[in-house]
Amino acid sequence: MSISTKPPSGMRDFLPADITRRRHVIKVIERIYEAHGFVPLETPTIENLATLTGKYGDEGDQLLYRLLHRRDALKRALDKEDVGEADLADQGLRYDLTVPLARVRAQYKDLPRFFKRYQIQPVWRADRPARGRFREFYQCDVDITGTESLVAEAEVCSAVSQVLTELGFEKFTILLNHRQLLRQLIKAAGIAEEMEGTALVAVDKLDKIGEEGVIAELSERGVSDDSSRKLLDLIKAADSNEATLEKLSASLDTEEAVQSIADLRKVLELSQSTAASGHLRLHPALARGLGYYTGCIFEIVVEDLNGSMGGGGRYDGLVGMFGKEQIPAVGFSLGLERILLVMDERNMFPPLSEGPDIMLCWMGVEEAQLLKAANVLRKQGLKVEIYPEGKKLGKQLQYTDNAGIPYAGILAEEELEGGTITIKNLKEGIQTNMALQEAGNLIRRRS
Amino acid sequence: MSISTKPPSGMRDFLPADITRRRHVIKVIERIYEAHGFVPLETPTIENLATLTGKYGDEGDQLLYRLLHRRDALKRALDKEDVGEADLADQGLRYDLTVPLARVRAQYKDLPRFFKRYQIQPVWRADRPARGRFREFYQCDVDITGTESLVAEAEVCSAVSQVLTELGFEKFTILLNHRQLLRQLIKAAGIAEEMEGTALVAVDKLDKIGEEGVIAELSERGVSDDSSRKLLDLIKAADSNEATLEKLSASLDTEEAVQSIADLRKVLELSQSTAASGHLRLHPALARGLGYYTGCIFEIVVEDLNGSMGGGGRYDGLVGMFGKEQIPAVGFSLGLERILLVMDERNMFPPLSEGPDIMLCWMGVEEAQLLKAANVLRKQGLKVEIYPEGKKLGKQLQYTDNAGIPYAGILAEEELEGGTITIKNLKEGIQTNMALQEAGNLIRRRS
Repeated sequence: MSISTKPPSGMRDFLPADITRRRHVIKVIERIYEAHGFVPLETPTIENLATLTGKYGDEGDQLLYRLLHRRDALKRALDKEDVGEADLADQGLRYDLTVPLARVRAQYKDLPRFFKRYQIQPVWRADRPARGRFREFYQCDVDITGTESLVAEAEVCSAVSQVLTELGFEKFTILLNHRQLLRQLIKAAGIAEEMEGTALVAVDKLDKIGEEGVIAELSERGVSDDSSRKLLDLIKAADSNEATLEKLSASLDTEEAVQSIADLRKVLELSQSTAASGHLRLHPALARGLGYYTGCIFEIVVEDLNGSMGGGGRYDGLVGMFGKEQIPAVGFSLGLERILLVMDERNMFPPLSEGPDIMLCWMGVEEAQLLKAANVLRKQGLKVEIYPEGKKLGKQLQYTDNAGIPYAGILAEEELEGGTITIKNLKEGIQTNMALQEAGNLIRRRS
Repeated sequence: MSISTKPPSGMRDFLPADITRRRHVIKVIERIYEAHGFVPLETPTIENLATLTGKYGDEGDQLLYRLLHRRDALKRALDKEDVGEADLADQGLRYDLTVPLARVRAQYKDLPRFFKRYQIQPVWRADRPARGRFREFYQCDVDITGTESLVAEAEVCSAVSQVLTELGFEKFTILLNHRQLLRQLIKAAGIAEEMEGTALVAVDKLDKIGEEGVIAELSERGVSDDSSRKLLDLIKAADSNEATLEKLSASLDTEEAVQSIADLRKVLELSQSTAASGHLRLHPALARGLGYYTGCIFEIVVEDLNGSMGGGGRYDGLVGMFGKEQIPAVGFSLGLERILLVMDERNMFPPLSEGPDIMLCWMGVEEAQLLKAANVLRKQGLKVEIYPEGKKLGKQLQYTDNAGIPYAGILAEEELEGGTITIKNLKEGIQTNMALQEAGNLIRRRS
């Protein structure tokens, strides 16, 4: 047979040990998000393309997975003269968790005004796979809808900061900027308004392509080198947040700029009372690729990791794209795969137990008696596997040890007659005969 | 704007109350599956079509979701003369959890010989949506690979039976049959071997179309009415399992029939020692649609539910379709949506708490002080929301009550000066002023 048994490129199988680590992290995230008053939401894997397209920029639209029409709809499409992508699909896979939230917020009129939701689900992007970058990956989002209050910005930063702290990250930085401020900086550099999008895209790549790269890219699009250099100078952070705020205030005096600087100052001030304290750093060069941000924007960076561990921002216009009502919103998304990658490299996981506590091994007894004994042990809260075949006892014990199961429970005629079981601790090699009813206590006490 | 905000047909949004109920059920399933020694596995949403096609029968192949090629691959496909479905896609969405397990079993050589895994994930089928039938739905599978021992059959039946029992189902029946037996019955009815598949498909519909329907369908395919009637007679269950076994033994005498009757007898006998005791019923008419079964087959039915709540069986040939090695396997799949549907209709859910414990309401204090107080309460294990805007206190309390949050924590100048908080129980209307540090104890004690 020649069917490949590997998962498709960019996709992964999660074996039991992987899942144990993933669940450990997800459990912390859920607990901290819930402590911050967020409630869970899940949205379908498949969305209408009308929901997805036009929200993520041109690059995003190209990375969407589209579902091929079936049967009659496919036949009708293929009968067309000049059939193209748009004729062949009208549904696609979830690309992020923010656009589905905006759709949900517009759809359900009964949601509380300040609907605060968290969502931990996979998303799909047909991107080129690389280290820590997959085509199916989990995002862990918190969003607060319904308010323009900057308490919301402080709360989402607090939630993600506490998650990282509890997972054992000490040094992490939340880069902070403001979309309106960045627009004002572009304007102050003398770059024409119609080139704003181009300038945002170029600035977003600063870390990757360097200053000369940004200048070259902007020059190609007709922005003068003088303007580019001025912009690069304006978006340079000073040594401290306070010094950066002062520098920005000195460079800009439009109403929008004054307001966005005041917003940033307030988020920094509020965050001094939260888990984000000491982790926020003003970074006027931060652009964030996605098209829908309108206010504060965030990105989390840690040492030794290219790219970010998460990001977010305020998007006051997105919900209004789906309904009549404009509903302001701000959110933060943690990337599960990046967190796991770094935790793995730095050995940050605590000891995590997985798999059965005990394997029932047997000799000269009926299989029905095994199942009965397993039932008794399971009622004591133990995770019990049964060796399914009548092999030699030594072979059964060897298998149990190889599988990493800490205890073997041996049942033979002697045990059966006395209503007992022989419990063998495979690591220590000690074995004890005891009443079946007491095995649970012994094993729980020792593990 | 004219974008629909509903999820696509057959897809659902899960709001917080839905998720609370879903998690309750999933938690029970995970606990019982782990008690039975199963370990978790997750496989990707997207699989190669080569993995998926040809495993589920013709109908299954038609219900697969296929992913449209992108960019160059799409262009190349559309440049072809007579482009069809096969040119436009080579990946699709997971259709069940058994075929991915078979692929995984063939791929990873280090898995334990008796790899017992559980998997709780959504699958996708482009079926016509109906009551309790969705296009995205969760399956909860247990499978034991690597053994032909019937202890494995007994274990998967025990696991799903204990799940249903713990969820509060008292009357449920696991219909039990054997694929080899059914083949022998078809043969004994005088139906030609090449019509065996046709007969299986027709028998599978017996519940829906009745005896006359089965006879008509088989007649159309050239099976004589005599043979059809004989088959219908042979597959009729007697009053008890024992009587059915006797009836089958009297009707059949081939080696295969004797062996499969012995298998069924043993599974029934072993199950008397497990949680499945009293729930298994021999049902020789059970066929199970999927193509890959080779031995015992199961299906769970409950009163007031059309269709099954789950099913499974032995499939000793499937892993071998992916690798050189034939690895026997048996599994059982519970349908989460069906379980939830029945539990909902019968009011079987215990009281489940959801959402924040307390809303911080405020008046005349700084927002930074609110965030600080929230931090203190969260450290006590409480789920804390902050009213994000400076509205009148009455309005804040009203919102909190409407949102179903049981406690309001009021912070005003007086509280702030004394380092206290006023905790109001909104249901009882009682309020108490206390140290911030003590609020956690009060709230946990009362909820």
